[in-house]
Amino acid sequence: MVNPILLPEIRLMLAEQDSQGLLEVATELHPATVADFTEGLSVDETWQVLAHAPLAIQADIFSYYSNSKQEELVEGGGRQRMSALLEEMAPDNRVDLLKRLDERLVEDLLPLVAKAERQDIRTLLSYPEHSSGSVMTTEYASIPADISAGEAISRLRIQAPNSEMIYYIYVLGDDRHLLGFVSLRDLILARPTTPVSDLMERDVISVRVDEDQEDVAKKMARYDFLAMPVVDTTGRLVGIVTHDDVIDVVVDEATEDVHRMGGLMPMDEDYLEASFASVWRKRSFWLSCLFIAELFTFTALAKYETLIEKVVILSLFVPLCISTGGNSGSQAATLITRAMALGQLRPQDWWRVLRHELAMGLALGLTLGSIGFFRAWLTPAHVLAAPGNTDITATALAIIISLSVAAICLWGTLVGSMLPLVFKRLGFDPGFASSPFVATFVDVTGIVIYFTIAQIFVDFT
Amino acid sequence: MVNPILLPEIRLMLAEQDSQGLLEVATELHPATVADFTEGLSVDETWQVLAHAPLAIQADIFSYYSNSKQEELVEGGGRQRMSALLEEMAPDNRVDLLKRLDERLVEDLLPLVAKAERQDIRTLLSYPEHSSGSVMTTEYASIPADISAGEAISRLRIQAPNSEMIYYIYVLGDDRHLLGFVSLRDLILARPTTPVSDLMERDVISVRVDEDQEDVAKKMARYDFLAMPVVDTTGRLVGIVTHDDVIDVVVDEATEDVHRMGGLMPMDEDYLEASFASVWRKRSFWLSCLFIAELFTFTALAKYETLIEKVVILSLFVPLCISTGGNSGSQAATLITRAMALGQLRPQDWWRVLRHELAMGLALGLTLGSIGFFRAWLTPAHVLAAPGNTDITATALAIIISLSVAAICLWGTLVGSMLPLVFKRLGFDPGFASSPFVATFVDVTGIVIYFTIAQIFVDFT
Repeated sequence: MVNPILLPEIRLMLAEQDSQGLLEVATELHPATVADFTEGLSVDETWQVLAHAPLAIQADIFSYYSNSKQEELVEGGGRQRMSALLEEMAPDNRVDLLKRLDERLVEDLLPLVAKAERQDIRTLLSYPEHSSGSVMTTEYASIPADISAGEAISRLRIQAPNSEMIYYIYVLGDDRHLLGFVSLRDLILARPTTPVSDLMERDVISVRVDEDQEDVAKKMARYDFLAMPVVDTTGRLVGIVTHDDVIDVVVDEATEDVHRMGGLMPMDEDYLEASFASVWRKRSFWLSCLFIAELFTFTALAKYETLIEKVVILSLFVPLCISTGGNSGSQAATLITRAMALGQLRPQDWWRVLRHELAMGLALGLTLGSIGFFRAWLTPAHVLAAPGNTDITATALAIIISLSVAAICLWGTLVGSMLPLVFKRLGFDPGFASSPFVATFVDVTGIVIYFTIAQIFVDFT
Repeated sequence: MVNPILLPEIRLMLAEQDSQGLLEVATELHPATVADFTEGLSVDETWQVLAHAPLAIQADIFSYYSNSKQEELVEGGGRQRMSALLEEMAPDNRVDLLKRLDERLVEDLLPLVAKAERQDIRTLLSYPEHSSGSVMTTEYASIPADISAGEAISRLRIQAPNSEMIYYIYVLGDDRHLLGFVSLRDLILARPTTPVSDLMERDVISVRVDEDQEDVAKKMARYDFLAMPVVDTTGRLVGIVTHDDVIDVVVDEATEDVHRMGGLMPMDEDYLEASFASVWRKRSFWLSCLFIAELFTFTALAKYETLIEKVVILSLFVPLCISTGGNSGSQAATLITRAMALGQLRPQDWWRVLRHELAMGLALGLTLGSIGFFRAWLTPAHVLAAPGNTDITATALAIIISLSVAAICLWGTLVGSMLPLVFKRLGFDPGFASSPFVATFVDVTGIVIYFTIAQIFVDFT
């Protein structure tokens, strides 16, 4: 986010070397606000402003810049400055940054970072993308079980500067095994002599470090936690995922779902920042797949070429009939995919969904079929009377169109509602049953439905 | 979420009147877990289990049940029990519940609720849906500015039982005007004699009670707060929105966007719980609009009836050509709508988007056009040689198809990328430029593009 309101003032302060003013700008506002105000400065100007704040605040502000600005700052910042900043940054933020940087640049910077931080970075970098490990931070507060509430608060005071979250304190046993947690609220409310073991919550809900970040988000949303402990396969605490990172996960996952639904491979870059070649690859891949699938509409239509030559007017209603299936299918697929993402539906519910969508598809089909009937019935005489069209009356045409529209609408609804459940069942992302995918599938089959119905009436009359 | 693992055990405890066991179930697990385990019980059984826990825990568990279960419990719970529970529930949760209940039932319950809570309920009920006021809670912790850190902690101990969030404490002046806030972290770290006025953050970021909940969510996500203060027009603190409610808002807003994109009016009910009539209305409205718009494909095709009669094979490629526009349009619309929702794009950026999509549309058009060329070129001789098709060669057909596909793909990309920006500019939700909407629009115009190109070639040869 760029907020250019203060830019001229900040530039003036830089020109006048107004250290006091710059210190105030950098330290008295929320780091996110400082980032918004200085996003528009050049790399050199930005570093000059940052230099006025203590290193910890510099690191905070830095992590609120856009990805592209962060990368520019790294390149224009010099190794000494950047390695000091990396040591100060929150573990999850700095790993996010390092993942995006050029590998050579990272190998250039890392040797200058203190050993403890360097090890932390290597560990966090090793977790696969989209795992809990990839979004967690290692700066949590922890205490043993055998101390008192008063002593716990004293220890917390020491840990606070290095902990991202001090409102949940994790109680660890031997070898960092997670025994439970206690909230700062409970510590404050308890008498100082109460042992931590009496206060702590033992039914602790945690996630495994290799679990999907989406599962973390779902659990956090369900249990309303401020942070969620992340453990390894043996139950040792390795990190925590905090509330603010969960919001980012929820937003990212929604973006992924939306992109899949729109028929493109998920993109995590900013629209204006992404490279042309990578966007082209992601967009053309699905468009080409859909195009190749859509080639079958030609194959299907070719089967009815003789019928079309006899009654050309039938071909004029093809787009109307098949788009009905595409639209009703998209609608159903969207509804079911989202309901699954929200945990309202599981593949086991397919029978309830089928009954529901059967009734809904019929109701929607009747609605659209009625509209279609009147439109076809009102076909102007000169269109009907064109040379090829001697075999059909307006009424017959109206019946063909309304029946086809109703049948294709029902078919689209059923396909759109069942495909996401089938995909989920088979272990694919239900989002692949996206609107364009369903629409393409229903286009081809819709042609067969339409001309089968038409053939019956044409043969009959 | 239903978790049936413990159901038989809980039923056994109820049959054996095992009060100790039921007390443990109800109090030692996370309230959300208790709700999951007991969701499958009957209304009477559920109330029997709940009765073993203190009222505060009952209220917690209650708020984790699904909407339909909550409503059943209210109806089967009796007025006395429910009014006591309502007094204990978190203000935001109980208002959510009351909004969903039958009005007569609410008017029946409210007189039994204590006066202070009743007033709180009426105030919260008065805020419009989707406003900050509608998602906030009134149970926050507050202190005056002129006390010490030590005294602040003592006061916090008293307020804690009635505060949803005690990690941010709001500093209020005369008449509840918001002066700043201090975190419990800072209070704990400070010397007990330090005045609150020295510790507090004065640059406090707040939202107005009538602001959209989406703005609250965006600010919380940007600033990583645990809670956000909500003020009235004169700057008085009226409530706070907490981190857990923001996750719900983010999820709800994503659902709304996804539904709009899929061509249906946003639905906030659970898929399996929503009433048939209301779902039919929401689905048939958009489907009918799209169907009526799609009728113009017939009107457009009718204009080219003579050409089709002459070269019937042209009609066999109509679905392929127009679906290309629909797919490329959906893709572009999805990308741009999501980028705007994420704040990466604003309508002012239209020029950059247009240049970008012009290049992308050409690249995608060339890709699909090449595939189309070869497919049309390979049209079997017997399809080409059908009686009506004496006028066209496979090469001419291949050129017509590839040019049309490329042009329509470009056109779809441009329409799909520009419409959301135009809608946003005009003050509509850009989501209305959904995949089906764009696809329908491009279907009609795609027909015109295709037959214009075809006409030129047919006239020429």
